[in-house]
Formats: sequence, structure tokens, C-alpha cells
Amino acid sequence: MSHVTAERLLVINPNSSAVVTRAIDVAVDPLRARSPFAIDVMGLQGTPAGIAVQSDADRVAPDVLHAMRAHPARGYVVACFSDPGVPGAREELGGTPVRGIGESAILHALIVGDRFGIVALSRSAILRQRRLVRVMGVDARYAGSRAIDARAEETTSALLLDRMSEAACGLVSDGADTIIMGCAGMAHFREEIEGLCGRPVIEPTRAAVAALIGDCLLRN
Amino acid sequence: MSHVTAERLLVINPNSSAVVTRAIDVAVDPLRARSPFAIDVMGLQGTPAGIAVQSDADRVAPDVLHAMRAHPARGYVVACFSDPGVPGAREELGGTPVRGIGESAILHALIVGDRFGIVALSRSAILRQRRLVRVMGVDARYAGSRAIDARAEETTSALLLDRMSEAACGLVSDGADTIIMGCAGMAHFREEIEGLCGRPVIEPTRAAVAALIGDCLLRN
Amino acid sequence: MSHVTAERLLVINPNSSAVVTRAIDVAVDPLRARSPFAIDVMGLQGTPAGIAVQSDADRVAPDVLHAMRAHPARGYVVACFSDPGVPGAREELGGTPVRGIGESAILHALIVGDRFGIVALSRSAILRQRRLVRVMGVDARYAGSRAIDARAEETTSALLLDRMSEAACGLVSDGADTIIMGCAGMAHFREEIEGLCGRPVIEPTRAAVAALIGDCLLRN
Amino acid sequence: MSHVTAERLLVINPNSSAVVTRAIDVAVDPLRARSPFAIDVMGLQGTPAGIAVQSDADRVAPDVLHAMRAHPARGYVVACFSDPGVPGAREELGGTPVRGIGESAILHALIVGDRFGIVALSRSAILRQRRLVRVMGVDARYAGSRAIDARAEETTSALLLDRMSEAACGLVSDGADTIIMGCAGMAHFREEIEGLCGRPVIEPTRAAVAALIGDCLLRN
Amino acid sequence: MSHVTAERLLVINPNSSAVVTRAIDVAVDPLRARSPFAIDVMGLQGTPAGIAVQSDADRVAPDVLHAMRAHPARGYVVACFSDPGVPGAREELGGTPVRGIGESAILHALIVGDRFGIVALSRSAILRQRRLVRVMGVDARYAGSRAIDARAEETTSALLLDRMSEAACGLVSDGADTIIMGCAGMAHFREEIEGLCGRPVIEPTRAAVAALIGDCLLRN
Amino acid sequence: MSHVTAERLLVINPNSSAVVTRAIDVAVDPLRARSPFAIDVMGLQGTPAGIAVQSDADRVAPDVLHAMRAHPARGYVVACFSDPGVPGAREELGGTPVRGIGESAILHALIVGDRFGIVALSRSAILRQRRLVRVMGVDARYAGSRAIDARAEETTSALLLDRMSEAACGLVSDGADTIIMGCAGMAHFREEIEGLCGRPVIEPTRAAVAALIGDCLLRN
Repeated sequence: MSHVTAERLLVINPNSSAVVTRAIDVAVDPLRARSPFAIDVMGLQGTPAGIAVQSDADRVAPDVLHAMRAHPARGYVVACFSDPGVPGAREELGGTPVRGIGESAILHALIVGDRFGIVALSRSAILRQRRLVRVMGVDARYAGSRAIDARAEETTSALLLDRMSEAACGLVSDGADTIIMGCAGMAHFREEIEGLCGRPVIEPTRAAVAALIGDCLLRN
Repeated sequence: MSHVTAERLLVINPNSSAVVTRAIDVAVDPLRARSPFAIDVMGLQGTPAGIAVQSDADRVAPDVLHAMRAHPARGYVVACFSDPGVPGAREELGGTPVRGIGESAILHALIVGDRFGIVALSRSAILRQRRLVRVMGVDARYAGSRAIDARAEETTSALLLDRMSEAACGLVSDGADTIIMGCAGMAHFREEIEGLCGRPVIEPTRAAVAALIGDCLLRN
Repeated sequence: MSHVTAERLLVINPNSSAVVTRAIDVAVDPLRARSPFAIDVMGLQGTPAGIAVQSDADRVAPDVLHAMRAHPARGYVVACFSDPGVPGAREELGGTPVRGIGESAILHALIVGDRFGIVALSRSAILRQRRLVRVMGVDARYAGSRAIDARAEETTSALLLDRMSEAACGLVSDGADTIIMGCAGMAHFREEIEGLCGRPVIEPTRAAVAALIGDCLLRN
Repeated sequence: MSHVTAERLLVINPNSSAVVTRAIDVAVDPLRARSPFAIDVMGLQGTPAGIAVQSDADRVAPDVLHAMRAHPARGYVVACFSDPGVPGAREELGGTPVRGIGESAILHALIVGDRFGIVALSRSAILRQRRLVRVMGVDARYAGSRAIDARAEETTSALLLDRMSEAACGLVSDGADTIIMGCAGMAHFREEIEGLCGRPVIEPTRAAVAALIGDCLLRN
Repeated sequence: MSHVTAERLLVINPNSSAVVTRAIDVAVDPLRARSPFAIDVMGLQGTPAGIAVQSDADRVAPDVLHAMRAHPARGYVVACFSDPGVPGAREELGGTPVRGIGESAILHALIVGDRFGIVALSRSAILRQRRLVRVMGVDARYAGSRAIDARAEETTSALLLDRMSEAACGLVSDGADTIIMGCAGMAHFREEIEGLCGRPVIEPTRAAVAALIGDCLLRN
Repeated sequence: MSHVTAERLLVINPNSSAVVTRAIDVAVDPLRARSPFAIDVMGLQGTPAGIAVQSDADRVAPDVLHAMRAHPARGYVVACFSDPGVPGAREELGGTPVRGIGESAILHALIVGDRFGIVALSRSAILRQRRLVRVMGVDARYAGSRAIDARAEETTSALLLDRMSEAACGLVSDGADTIIMGCAGMAHFREEIEGLCGRPVIEPTRAAVAALIGDCLLRN
């Protein structure tokens, strides 16, 4: 991380996979050129290599909040689709903008199309996504999720493209007109899947950082 | 705790207040006479004295799961209205029944009346209750929450009776026909508030243990 | 029926099929060993052999209430998935616990998994199930129903296993992670279907009696 | 009743109060001048004098269906706000139009304004209205109900005007922009209450008969 | 148009296709024999030949209101499934009944069956239908839409029968038990599609006019 | 307007009130210092001075789209809370970001708090807000609207502060924890009302422009 002042946005990858942290850093890079704020990305240590089940999300939530307390920033993105620690951080940090990538991708989908579908890593992830959608109160816009049976640390593998694109096309046939990638670190496939399924595909970390820039400008 | 075999139910108070743990033990006592399972109550150490804000709930969720792993039982009740750790525990423990007191009180309210209201400790608790209601998908039956501005460790104080009863009556005027006490450890006021507001009042820990007995019988 | 005191639970099969009444009696038998209350099962006379259409359910509702008035018990289960007479009985009997098997199976499904699906006997039954789900206000958790085109009095036939299992697997592909048997008297197939579809299968009469035991303990 | 052919509409008052039956007959009279179908009104015998609780509604549902079978008509209105027997009759009679006054008033309210409120006779009636609104799936348009604590057979009393108008004005302050009279036989107060609360007031029997005329024309 | 008095109902086809206007006129003809009001049909000039996208609907809404102001009638039907101008006209015209064919078909479906599906002309039309269903607040009864990829002015072509019937059957397999034709001017296929899919098929213009007759009788 | 290139954002005030257009220009000014895009504001000519009723919104929707076609920009904000023309513009302009201030304020409220309330100009505006909330599918997060009985062109008057603040406090007592100003041009009161009601107050035009900046960065 190159910035230490409060004039930066901090993206926290709650898992301990350096591969995923690097993928996130690459994913948000296109935003850096014109962002009025610096954008830093950090991983956590001592956390699981991926958020596979709900107890992994529970496990990292206090660490996420701890990292925010330790690293001052203008605003934060929690780069795990289950948004661990986000409601608690928002409550504790008061006016400082905090964004989960799950909620941010979903809110962005609401202005891009009518019904969104989510490409999930696993069946367990689908359960967390359904709870996220319900807690947000946006069930009426949710076409469903489809799992590709992969782990977070595999998302950078080129082998996943076929499975992702099959899931995306399946979601379109389920009635989705907008596709959300249900995991950080899949950004490198976004354009290709968009071409294959013929519908807009939202990469959640990039969507969260872009929205956070807006949030921070609003609080100027 | 007097039982160590798997033939007992374990009620876990996720906060570290011995007063609340004792109040919970007293609250579930009437169930012991006819319960086919022993009922043990334990508190956690090193956790906050009360779950005041969302990050407190986040903070204890991993400890709750850890306690379950360390203390074998036939089934578990998590005795905090925010149900910290419950979805994760359910996923990890597979068939072993796990109940949060928040969801259990709400599900019981669905068969007692038409619309339930919740007496909350604080405004922050109301926010957690709204999220709980939405994640359960039962908004259509929820009349709202009213806060009494108290901390969990005060719930045993006789001074709270007036505020609780005022909140309960307010919820009835908001359209609730069933009242839920939104915190463990208020059991000693249940009957009195029921008399004062004229509607059934559900004590969540007792409701959760009673339901857990049914769950365990079903898995016999 | 062997018990006449108020210390028993009474399961009322609202149809007149002795085969179904017997199947219900067998279904609840595993609960008897540890239940703190005796469990009696009775059928009604002069009612249809099965609740095939809505007017059958309407037809038996007054008889169900009449049977409750005539046979004192600690609590009642109405063993028809359309829950005929349950709201009225609850209103009339005040504090005495009353459970329909439809609502009880659905409420149990809410703590077992995220989205439930229902194996229905017929298309008409699906319509009643949809109304039940909506009146309960839990649509957000409902994956749908699939019909096996059978009559209630056929549910004991071994021939139905294939159709039930096909419906259960179909519901899983529709997004259900928990399966509910949409009729009393299918209990003997429960475990086998659970194995075949790979997801928890809830037998509604047993779920209702187990929950009723909890309700009665709570009112001790 | 003056008509015996299938060219008439039959309005069935499911209670046995001749006063209410007469009030219904007067209420629908303004529709007769231009209706393409004759409009007959009949009461039932041996039923309660009013539908006060859910078991009263359950009690009359089979009689309503029996009356339809015995009295051929082009279409039927069930003139009790709980719509007893309507789903069953619709299923049994196939294409013959059947209307409950509860659902018809609610559906009419959906095109008159945005949120409707219902003047209820009693707290028990409110519970039935909430279930009706949920089973119809139109909760998003429902502002609530307010009770006037009266019995069906009192609805013709001039003494009720004050209480009805107070309830109607209360519903407006609850966010209703359209008021529904939650009982047959209040028609004589409609215009006056409309003037007092300043919002459209829907009389359910008249609304149901008017809608039934449309239904029957559509099936010509 | 043959009637100029206020004793007529006026059906406004907001597009400029004379073929569609004629088809609408034929569609409502069966209602004329027994309608207590004359039924006139008019098209608009200078509007698009069909309402293909949302901006077409936006484009004609002011023209629809202008036509109502210019042509006095007892009540109005806007014969485009997107109901352009209906909320505004209702607000401006006060007590004069106004019906959109989209909302009218949907409200009629609510009493004919449990879940309706809509045959849409195009993917863009599906998006408008979803918004209409949500704005009406009846999502819980909506099974979905299927597109036949046609333009409004083609709806009279016999070649569309196959595609419509395939869409209708698809909707039944999606869980619809009632089918709505999502466009004015398809009336000539109604009976045939009903036979092919085995479920009631609602023609929206006819349903709207029939309902409007009821509305106008109610305001006599 | 000072920019003509596609590197600007264009805020369109759909009414013809120069006072409101100026107020909007002032409102978005704080965003200009750090925005990566220029921000232009324009009014429309020949439109009503304020969007008072639904037909005003209908009336301006085609003009809004026409202005977009005529004035190229990187992205557009429609600065009327009823979001006239937004769905149509989004459909026609494909990838170009388009934001209504109503939807943008509501989406922002979803990450600021749990339940939002809206200060409306008039009762007619409340009806449009309810429809907007339903069409967005976010009813579960909506605490309601309160009207201050003012016209759009009065929103700059200091006299409105008292009424706005009273409405905001009323919404808090209705359960809102976030307040949205339901009209463009109220920005000058934002901070003061926030102080008076003690909850975050969202100014919709600023929220929409900030969000649009994020949308445009995302499409870089």
C-alpha cells in the first residue's frame, strides 16, 4: 500500500489469499486513472484462504473491522461478496462510507437492468447470496444464483471461464437480464462472459469502488 | 453445567454477563420438569457484557461456534436475539439442531397471532431486528419494534418493567397482536407485561428451548 | 384412543380414510417413546375419504372444530396439509395449542434450510399450498410445489415412491434445499426420498406433533 | 327471489339475519336499472346471525356452496367480507363467475387509489381481513384496518355512523387514500362517510355485483 | 365513432395502426349486444405504429390524455398493455372511470386463477410488464412472461398463432394457471390458444371494457 | 452550459422554472471541485413550471429524451423526483449511464440506513413516490412519505424550512432512520434539517450526480 493519508480508499480482501488480493488490485486498476482518490488494496492475515462457508464469513468480520480501525481511509470496500463486517463497520464508523461488494453489485444491477442473477462459487455461497438479497429487501428483482463449484482461490484460473459462462447463460434463461459475478477476483473474465451471454456483467469489486468514489464525493 | 453427555441441550449466552446467564438459567427452569432432555446453560468468557451493536454480534459469532465444538450436546440454543453464529453453526453441524432465540420467538409468534411486535433494548437493536425479520422473509407479519433504551445487563432490574410495558402497549397500538421480548433475560417480567398489555408475550429463550426439544424429538 | 385426560395430544385426521389414520398413527409412533405427553390419533366419520379439492377442506373444517370440543386434550394437530379449521380453532380455544401440519412443516423448513419445496398430491393441492404459503407470509422462502397426481388414500402405496422421488428431485432443481411431503400418511417414504434427492425431507405430521410438544411444554 | 332462470345473478348472504339480507337487497338496487342481468338476493337459514369469528366463516362455507348448487344462476356473489366458500365454489363451478365481496372491494380499490384501508366490525374481523389481503398477495397496497366494535346485524343502525366515520378518518391518517366498508349491509352510510373522510368509500356488495356483471358479459 | 354523448365508453388505441384499431373494434364487439353503454373505439394519429419500447409508451401518454379531454365519455379504456397515461388520467379526471388493459387483465386474472403468465410481444415488453406488475404490487401472483418476438401491427397475422401457443404452454410449465395476452389485437386467437394450452386465456381489451362497464354501473 | 464535449455529465431539470434550475446548479456545485467530469445543468423550455401531478411527469418524459438526444454527454441525471423518461432513456441510450434523482436518492438511502422516509411536496407527489418505490421493488425499506403542501418553484423559499423539518421529524417517528428530500432544489436546507431531525438527510440531485460519476468511472 502506497498511501497512508485519509485521502485514499481502502479495499480490504478479508481472506488471506495473496492471489486473490493481487487479482483485486488488478481489477480496480482501471479506476485509478480518473479517481479523485487513491485506491489501496490489502489482504488480511490469519484468515481463511477463501470464504467458503458462513462461519468463514463470521470468522473474518471482526478482523475486517479491526483493519479499518488500524488503517485510516476516506472510505472502505470489503471485497468479499458476503459483505462480512459491513453493517457493523457502518454503525461504528458513522459517517465514513463503507461498501460491501455484494450489496454494491446488487444496487448497481438495479439501475442497469430489471432482474439480476448471480454467478456463485458454490451451493453454500448461494445460500449466503439469498440471505443478502432478502436482508437488502430486493427479492423482487432477483432472478437467482447458479453455482460453478469452485473455490475463491481458483477464480483466477482460465479453466473457470467455461463454467462461469455456462452459469451466466443459465441465469439469462432463468430470467436475469443482468449478471453479477458473485466473487471478488473474477474481473479478468468480465468482458468475455459479457460477450458470451449477451447481457451486461457486473464485476462487484470494481462496482463497489466506483460507487464508493461517489459516496466520498458526496460527503466532501 | 451438570451434564456432559450428548443427551442434553446446551443454551449458550454469548455475552459475558453472569447476571444474564443466571437469568437465562432461571428462565428455562420451568421447562426442565417435563423436558425429555437435560437443559444446561453456559456463558462465554472474553466476550462483551452485552450485545449492544452489530459489531458485538459479529465479535461473538466465532466464539459461539467454538463453544459448540467444545461442548457436545443434542442441540443448541444461542441466547442472544441477534442469533449470532446460528446460520454458520447450522451449516457446520449438519443435522444437529441449532436455534437462535430471535428466530425462534418470531416463528412461535407466527402461530400465536397474526402480527408480532418486538420490545427492543435500543435503537441499534431495532436495526438488527429489522434485518433478522427480512432475512427470515417474514416482513408481512411484523408490526415493528419499540426500544426501551436499556443495556442487556440491566434487563433483570425491576426498574425496567414500566418501560417494557409501555413499549408493549405501544406495539399493540401499532397493530401487533403478539409481543416478543427482544432480549434474553427479561423472562421474570413476562407474565406481568402480558397482563398489562392484554396480549400474549413471548419470552424468546424459553420459546427457543421448547422448540429445540421438539426439533430433537423429531430427529430421534 | 387410549387416553382421555387432558395430558394427551390429539392428532385429528379430518378425512374418513382408516388407512390414512393408521398411517398417521404409525408415523407419529417414534415420537411416543420420549414425548412427555401421550399422543392419540383419531379420524373423523362422515367426511370425504381424502381432501382433494378446496370444498373438501371447507367441508371438514367445522367437523374438526367439533371434534376438538368433544375430545379434551392438551393440544391438537390437524393432520391435513390444508390446515382446515386451524385458524378458527385457535381463535376459539384461546390458549390451547393447535397446529396444522401444513404450517408446521413449513415453519420447520424455515430453520432447516433456505427454500422449501412441497411434494403435492395434485394440481388442486398446489393451489391450496400456494394460498397457505401466502397467508403465512413466507413466499420469499418458497421454491414451489410439484404434483404426483395421486389421491390421499393412495399415499401408502409403494407404487408412489417413484413419483414422489421424481417430484422431490424436480423441486431441488427448482431451487429447493428442503423438501416437504405435502400430505399426511407419506411418512414411510421419508427416509428413502431423503436419500434419493439428497436433501432433508420433512414429514408434516411428525413435524407438527414435535412442535406441538414444544408448544405444550412452553405453556406448562 | 323473483328469477329462476340462469339469466340472473345471485347474491348470497351467508348469515341468517333477515335485516342484513334486506339491507343488501337495498344496497344493490341502484345497479338493477341498467344491469343486463337480473339481480336476486337470498339469505341462508340455519347459519349464524353474523360472521363474528373465523369458525363462523368456516361454518357457512359448505352452506354457501350448497346454495349455489341448489340455485342456478349466471354468476354468484358471496356477501360476507371473509369470502367464505369462494375459492371452493370457483374450483367446483369451473367457468361460472363467483365473487366474494371482500376480494371484489379490494380489487376495485386497486384502481381507485393507491392504498386502501378497511373499516372492520371487530378485532377478529381485522385478523380475517389481514389473512385475506395476504392470500390475495396485495399487502403492498394495504394501509390497515380499524375496528368499530359492532356486530353484523347492527350495521343498519344509525348509531354506527359516528364510529364508522371515525374509523374511516383514522385510516386516512394511517395512509389510506381509499376506504373500504368491511361488511355487507353498511351501504346506506357510504355517501355520508365519503363526505366526512374526504376520500372514496367502496361498498363491497355493490362493488362485487358491478364487477360480476362485467365478468358475466365477458363470458357471453 | 358513432356516439358523441357521455353515455358511451371510449376505447383509445394509443398507436396509429389502423389494423390494430380495427382488431380492437372486432375484439370488443361481442360485448356490445348486452352492454348498457355504447362502446366506441378510436386510434390516435401521429403516434408510433406500435408501442415497441418504453419511450414509445412515454411518447403517447400525453396524447392519450389529450384524446380523453377532447372526446367526452362515460369511461375510458387505454388499449395498450403498458397502460400509458392511465395514472395521470385517473388523477386528472377524478371520478370518471379509466382502465388500462394491462392492469385490467391482471386484476381479472387474480379472480380466475392463482398465478398468471403473460404472452409478450418482445423482450422490451417483458421489462414493461414486470414494472407494471411491481407497481401494482401483485408480484406474488405473477409466474412470468414469455416473448414471441413480434410487433404490435403483426398481431393479427395468422402466422403468430404457433408462437403464441408455444409461449402460452411455456408459461403453464413455468407455473402459470391463467394466461394473459400481453397486447391488444390478439383477440381472434384467444379461444384457440385456450384450447391448445388447456388454461383460461384472458384477452386484455375485452377484459378492460367488461370491467369498465362494471365501474360505470357502480357510479350510476 | 459551458461544456459541449462528451466528457461532461448533464443534469436535466425537466421543468421550466429557471429558479429551480439555478438551485440545482448551486446544489451540485460542491461536487465540481473533485469530479473527474464536468457537470452541466440545463432546464427545459415549454414544460410546466413544476411537476405537480402525474400528467406533468408524463408530459415532460418525451422532452427529457429529446434533450438527451440533442445534447451529447458522458451520462445524464434527470432532476425530477418522479424520474420521468428514465427507463425509456436507459433503454434507448444503451450503455450511456442515466440516473433519475428519485431512484438514486432511494438507492443511496439503502446503504446509509435501514428505512428511508421521503419529504414530499404534495399528496399527489406521495402517490408517485409510492409507485416509484414499488416499481423499484424496495417497499421493505420504505417508512413512508409526508407532504409539506408546496410547489416545486417554492422550494427555494426560506419559509419552507419549518414545514420540511416538521415532515422530517414526523418521518423519524414513523420509523425512518434516513430522510430523503423528495424534490430537486431543496439542497440549501439539507444540513439544517439534518441537524433538526438528527438523522442523515439525502439531497437527491447531489446523490444522483455523485452516483453517476461512479457509473461513468466504471464504464471507462
